[in-house]
Amino acid sequence: MTQSDTLITIPARRGKAARVREGQVVKVINTRGQQVVDTWAFNAHDMTEFMSMEHSRAAMEKIVPQVGDTLVTNRRRPMLQVVEDTTPGVHDTLIAACDVYRYQQLGCEGYHDNCTDNLVAGLSELGESAPEIPSPLNLFMNIPVTEGGRIAFRPPVCSTGQHIAFRAKMDLIIAFSACPQDIIPINGEARTPTEAHFTIG
Amino acid sequence: MTQSDTLITIPARRGKAARVREGQVVKVINTRGQQVVDTWAFNAHDMTEFMSMEHSRAAMEKIVPQVGDTLVTNRRRPMLQVVEDTTPGVHDTLIAACDVYRYQQLGCEGYHDNCTDNLVAGLSELGESAPEIPSPLNLFMNIPVTEGGRIAFRPPVCSTGQHIAFRAKMDLIIAFSACPQDIIPINGEARTPTEAHFTIG
Repeated sequence: MTQSDTLITIPARRGKAARVREGQVVKVINTRGQQVVDTWAFNAHDMTEFMSMEHSRAAMEKIVPQVGDTLVTNRRRPMLQVVEDTTPGVHDTLIAACDVYRYQQLGCEGYHDNCTDNLVAGLSELGESAPEIPSPLNLFMNIPVTEGGRIAFRPPVCSTGQHIAFRAKMDLIIAFSACPQDIIPINGEARTPTEAHFTIG
Repeated sequence: MTQSDTLITIPARRGKAARVREGQVVKVINTRGQQVVDTWAFNAHDMTEFMSMEHSRAAMEKIVPQVGDTLVTNRRRPMLQVVEDTTPGVHDTLIAACDVYRYQQLGCEGYHDNCTDNLVAGLSELGESAPEIPSPLNLFMNIPVTEGGRIAFRPPVCSTGQHIAFRAKMDLIIAFSACPQDIIPINGEARTPTEAHFTIG
């Protein structure tokens, strides 16, 4: 393992961002198997260009990216290509990041960690800020689409240590949040959010 | 018909925005039956709050809103409730508004009208501007979701004069674009974008 392949931790309930050069591969590991990882990417040289789910669905002509598919930016340029996926391929592009409003509606009193604030915090550690909160690529998140376009929130179907890997198609900043949702079982029936990991190599 | 029910034109290939008070009903008419109308809504008192497809899908637990469903904002507050739909109910929340990048990729030389610029122009006529370009509610747009989450771009299934109506759940600014897409048949096999109309009453 080279230094660039160092395992970086996305702490449980927290965000983490990193700089990635064009051509590098980012591998995201579901360390304990039941953790959703909200994922964003921004052009390293212009934060107003970022990975966009609504543009990516149009480009891919599918809802969930698979190996070979490329997520694109809000300017429809290639950003992240899926190069490997050892999970069953269940990820989500439909659902907003959780936020303070979500937890208020779920009855939480006081502050609850959330993916939206984790994005802001992760970028802040790099001295960066997002011009807006794009809809995230929710890795390992299980949102089945059924008859008539109905959707549901279900626990992940991953196993410990499974991963998905992306090749960066431009210099970018990638940002992750280990989703702190512990009210509904989107991070597993135990409702115990955990850490996850990634490598850049 | 009262003055407030006046038929307002969304000109072919163009945008149009209007102010709507809480409780009013906005009816959007597919005048010629094959026209997609991209739709956005913003809190009239704070443009940073706007209708969000990714938050609405989470709230509705479905991809396409039906009568009784409420589209919510990026702060998860009710914005527009569907109160009537005389169309077959085929609308879209998955696909980004068309933009200059889309038409460049489709091989257009020079400028092509597009829904993103139409949003900006429509708001500008009211002296307003959007802080970002939210993913639109694409009325009458036919994006079937099939096996394995595949999606496709198909002509509308509406008939002349069919409409959908929404009740405003807050004071808001609504913005429409009569989609100028004439390269692919998303606005009908004739690929001839037309005008559409709306009322506020």
